[in-house]
Amino acid sequence: MNTIGLVAFALVGSAKAIREEFDLFGIAVVGLAMAFAGGVTRDLLVNRVPLALQSPIEISLGLLGVSLAVGLSVVLDSPDDHPISLLSDAVGLAAFATTGAIVATDTGVSAFGVVAVATINAAGGGAFADILLDRSPFILFDDFYASCAVLGGSAYWLVVTAGGAGSTAAGVCAAVTVGIRLAAINYGWGLPTAQILGLTRQEGDDNP
Amino acid sequence: MNTIGLVAFALVGSAKAIREEFDLFGIAVVGLAMAFAGGVTRDLLVNRVPLALQSPIEISLGLLGVSLAVGLSVVLDSPDDHPISLLSDAVGLAAFATTGAIVATDTGVSAFGVVAVATINAAGGGAFADILLDRSPFILFDDFYASCAVLGGSAYWLVVTAGGAGSTAAGVCAAVTVGIRLAAINYGWGLPTAQILGLTRQEGDDNP
Amino acid sequence: MNTIGLVAFALVGSAKAIREEFDLFGIAVVGLAMAFAGGVTRDLLVNRVPLALQSPIEISLGLLGVSLAVGLSVVLDSPDDHPISLLSDAVGLAAFATTGAIVATDTGVSAFGVVAVATINAAGGGAFADILLDRSPFILFDDFYASCAVLGGSAYWLVVTAGGAGSTAAGVCAAVTVGIRLAAINYGWGLPTAQILGLTRQEGDDNP
Repeated sequence: MNTIGLVAFALVGSAKAIREEFDLFGIAVVGLAMAFAGGVTRDLLVNRVPLALQSPIEISLGLLGVSLAVGLSVVLDSPDDHPISLLSDAVGLAAFATTGAIVATDTGVSAFGVVAVATINAAGGGAFADILLDRSPFILFDDFYASCAVLGGSAYWLVVTAGGAGSTAAGVCAAVTVGIRLAAINYGWGLPTAQILGLTRQEGDDNP
Repeated sequence: MNTIGLVAFALVGSAKAIREEFDLFGIAVVGLAMAFAGGVTRDLLVNRVPLALQSPIEISLGLLGVSLAVGLSVVLDSPDDHPISLLSDAVGLAAFATTGAIVATDTGVSAFGVVAVATINAAGGGAFADILLDRSPFILFDDFYASCAVLGGSAYWLVVTAGGAGSTAAGVCAAVTVGIRLAAINYGWGLPTAQILGLTRQEGDDNP
Repeated sequence: MNTIGLVAFALVGSAKAIREEFDLFGIAVVGLAMAFAGGVTRDLLVNRVPLALQSPIEISLGLLGVSLAVGLSVVLDSPDDHPISLLSDAVGLAAFATTGAIVATDTGVSAFGVVAVATINAAGGGAFADILLDRSPFILFDDFYASCAVLGGSAYWLVVTAGGAGSTAAGVCAAVTVGIRLAAINYGWGLPTAQILGLTRQEGDDNP
């Protein structure tokens, strides 16, 4: 699963960079950043030398995703919106959320720490790629995306706290994340803004 | 004081995200980022697992600030410009600068290191929140804000170097930071740009 | 060489901030960020307390670069495009790539890790400065810049792997980086985008 995630995230990141007409170096950097920034941040938070710098296999998978993005841009108009990309991306989100939750639990942080590290591991790469592309991270205002990792990480913590085995918790976390993400894509879920909730009067400013 | 700072910073960050019409997840992330990014960066720089991931109390305070921002957006037009917000924000700036200076001194870095960590702890959260909102960090071109933390951190280092007790230094640092910040708000202080100093000829480019 | 690099990078970063009309604090922060962000990221990745926080000499060099930028903005229209700046910048790029490669090799990461840390050390400061200025990092779509550090880091790894001494590898890395960078400036080298390679059909979207 982690394999699918690395390839899928690198593909989606590179496809975004291609659309912005970055050069080949930029395409590789944004793709690798999307695939690895979440995991590197996780490792920094728990004080480890990032795995991505140590394992040649992980990097090869990331570069495979970058090559796929460049190759697919010949045959597809928007490789990052294709159903296969969306499915791989959802699997990657689940894999990364699970890895994050496991690493955080091993380090012995609080319940919030587990959920935060799971979410950062899963969604941090995409957020960092958007900052490199000079946008607000899309996970912050669009879509029901990082929320899936929040729910998956919470599920992991609940299972472990209830005395469940780590492998059970990992399975539950992955299933919850990927399930909710696919449902969100399918039904177009999103979280409301404060404006939609009618909680703010800012709109009044536009119609004085 | 740290308590007030966490709540105030989360409130100001969330209020900014509400104004940008982010969804509820984005509002929470920007608020928590503003409250914790400075402290997490501080902990990374001195090689510790971030406190924010370990202490459930700190996170609860941050979430309280987020809730306040959503709640206040009902009754106030711009909760982040309200005098109470500005005052809390100044107290938070002082509290975070002091914490940063203490942690840096314990780690045994240089004088510049103490001032840098104090400033990053105090102003880094706001800068990171602005990057998430796809703006240049306001502390870099507007306002006499981070400079207060620079002066507070310098005061801390001076007192410690002069042989003062850590608690005295902390008190002086907090008083200097909050005092200068409130004076800066009151009198509208700002630092000059190179253009205003008449040090550059770039303006000539506009009037050939 | 490291000395030249610190001064040159701080100068280029501050000159960019002056052009954006940041205040004096912002000018200093962007200059220091450009000079030190690469090295600090390198130290975080290999789990060390950043050298920049410990050594007063390094910071003094950075502040010298900032002062030079403010001073030069009186006498030059665009100090960051001046041949002397470009030459110093190329030397700095080479010095930082070499330092990164040495530190990464000492930590015992993979071949990719050596190249990645060399590149981040050399080009990370400029990328971070651009994020502070609310732009996409220029290294990602413009110019043959970070690629020089990639080639220099690869040369370092090749020499070390082939059994060469560390000092030989460092010399080769620096020579490769600065040589390729100067050639790239001279001949206007750049990497192609996917669009130029004719690998994408996105252009068709504009002309339906």
